[in-house]
Amino acid sequence: MAKMKDVAERAGVAESTVSHVINNTRFVTPATRERVLRVMSELNFHGNAHARRLARGHSDFLGLIISDIENPFFPGLIKSFESSALAGGFDILLCTTNYDAARAEAAFRKMIENKVPGVAVMTSRVDPSLASVLQRNDVASIFLDSGQVAERTSNIRIQYSQGAEQAVAYLHNLGHRDFAFIAGPGNRSSHAAYKSAVVGALEQLGLEARLIDGENSVASGERAVQKLLTSRKLPTAILASNDLTAIGALRAFHRAGIRVPADVSVVGADDIPFASLTNPSLTTVQIGNERLGELACQKLLGMLRDSDAASELVLPTELVIRESTALAAH
Amino acid sequence: MAKMKDVAERAGVAESTVSHVINNTRFVTPATRERVLRVMSELNFHGNAHARRLARGHSDFLGLIISDIENPFFPGLIKSFESSALAGGFDILLCTTNYDAARAEAAFRKMIENKVPGVAVMTSRVDPSLASVLQRNDVASIFLDSGQVAERTSNIRIQYSQGAEQAVAYLHNLGHRDFAFIAGPGNRSSHAAYKSAVVGALEQLGLEARLIDGENSVASGERAVQKLLTSRKLPTAILASNDLTAIGALRAFHRAGIRVPADVSVVGADDIPFASLTNPSLTTVQIGNERLGELACQKLLGMLRDSDAASELVLPTELVIRESTALAAH
Repeated sequence: MAKMKDVAERAGVAESTVSHVINNTRFVTPATRERVLRVMSELNFHGNAHARRLARGHSDFLGLIISDIENPFFPGLIKSFESSALAGGFDILLCTTNYDAARAEAAFRKMIENKVPGVAVMTSRVDPSLASVLQRNDVASIFLDSGQVAERTSNIRIQYSQGAEQAVAYLHNLGHRDFAFIAGPGNRSSHAAYKSAVVGALEQLGLEARLIDGENSVASGERAVQKLLTSRKLPTAILASNDLTAIGALRAFHRAGIRVPADVSVVGADDIPFASLTNPSLTTVQIGNERLGELACQKLLGMLRDSDAASELVLPTELVIRESTALAAH
Repeated sequence: MAKMKDVAERAGVAESTVSHVINNTRFVTPATRERVLRVMSELNFHGNAHARRLARGHSDFLGLIISDIENPFFPGLIKSFESSALAGGFDILLCTTNYDAARAEAAFRKMIENKVPGVAVMTSRVDPSLASVLQRNDVASIFLDSGQVAERTSNIRIQYSQGAEQAVAYLHNLGHRDFAFIAGPGNRSSHAAYKSAVVGALEQLGLEARLIDGENSVASGERAVQKLLTSRKLPTAILASNDLTAIGALRAFHRAGIRVPADVSVVGADDIPFASLTNPSLTTVQIGNERLGELACQKLLGMLRDSDAASELVLPTELVIRESTALAAH
């Protein structure tokens, strides 16, 4: 394998000059710089990942692709990702997809046009096959809840089972036997995974939940409760696919004069900032969004430094108990 | 003044080639392209703003500088700014300052390094003197609530007086005479302006408010109410510097067993998404954050197209009446 010395000899410069080109630590004339980069390429010299990026003209941006900045799960994630990136010497290039396939493709294209060395795709709605576009352009990537799709692709899997089991066991201990689950859109892998985790945790106790379709919004939580109110008997405990849905449920119960948690217990998922500010405050399965942003960025930085191989990471979840859950009403 | 024909003649190319260089509509060899750009510069030919940007090597990013992405006022602003930018053919480069002077300076530097043609500074905490750095680098800019600081700088002034007067008149009509105002940090011009508007509106009715210091956070709203609870008599109406503060006040009253709005009315400011979801939902002075993002981007695009001169725009505010206000308790 070629060494820095070989590059220096062939380019007719001092080793220190090669180092300055690689690390951008001193001014090198464009002609010399280009000669050094050409020789590095001829000798297939990639002393380190930074040199490789530089030789291929990568920028100092890390890409971050999310679905919707107005979803309160994301601002904390963006902030922690950005902090980690800044600490690692990178700025961030943020793109949103708004759950739109064409915008998602445009976001991936933008990452490549802007020569980012690595991208975190922190929405589970994006087709992981787009990862191959990044691969072809030598862009390291990390996806959320998509499985490891290729050699240079990492994945963060959210371990929903943990939090779901805690929530179900907690409610079971409070005497709840009649459950409903307001599901998120089935076409998002993360919500399908949370639904499976809740259903599985209930099955382990010989229970099952009434399933109601929702779409992760306040309005869909309100609609779901309106539907439940027409049934013969209310469930005593309701789990929702996310906090927005649970907040919608709280509002609909409040309007109907049904007391949470005296008459019915409600559990959300995510732990968005407002989950602790509702009246009553929301018991929820916490998905650490700040931890997620930090984890994604640290892994990406490790991959870029070649100190980390691509791999799958696991983000645990846990139940946070607040005021919206209590003993089952009988 | 030089015309496109003059540039074509002197560069020894067809006029269509000059047009292709300017509009990037067809491949032009680097040597020809450079010759055309040099001649454009020699003849001081700036057929349009886009040509000038191109000649000076501007990027296709519009910069957006905000303070804190976790402040729920900003996601809606970012989203609408981004939509307008995309429609105008630009991507956005988002930087956050986290209310830190060093990070604000870094954000301005980053805008210049990345050769953005225009920047919107949508936080009132940033020193508008940084505008001169943008000016020197031929970057168009628009600031929030900072006054028009230089020739190529626009400003959006939030017209707090309108919403403040509506809120005070509404409460006055409900019989309120005993007011408190929980103020935001005095060092942020926007909050000083809102405070003046509230105090001024009360003065017009021969009233004054007890002033309590806050810092635009849920916690500071809770603290302010705890302080009020130690006073001889509660005010009947409380106005808060922003919705987070008002939400803190709602929580503290809830905990103290004081009913909103039966015992005391509470009015926020901003109209963040959760203002309509609290129990009771929050009456508030709406500052249209989506309108603000759109207005800033449209103005910036107009300035870049040279169709708009730099100027001051006004964003009106208005009272949104929900459940947290009612007849004064006697």
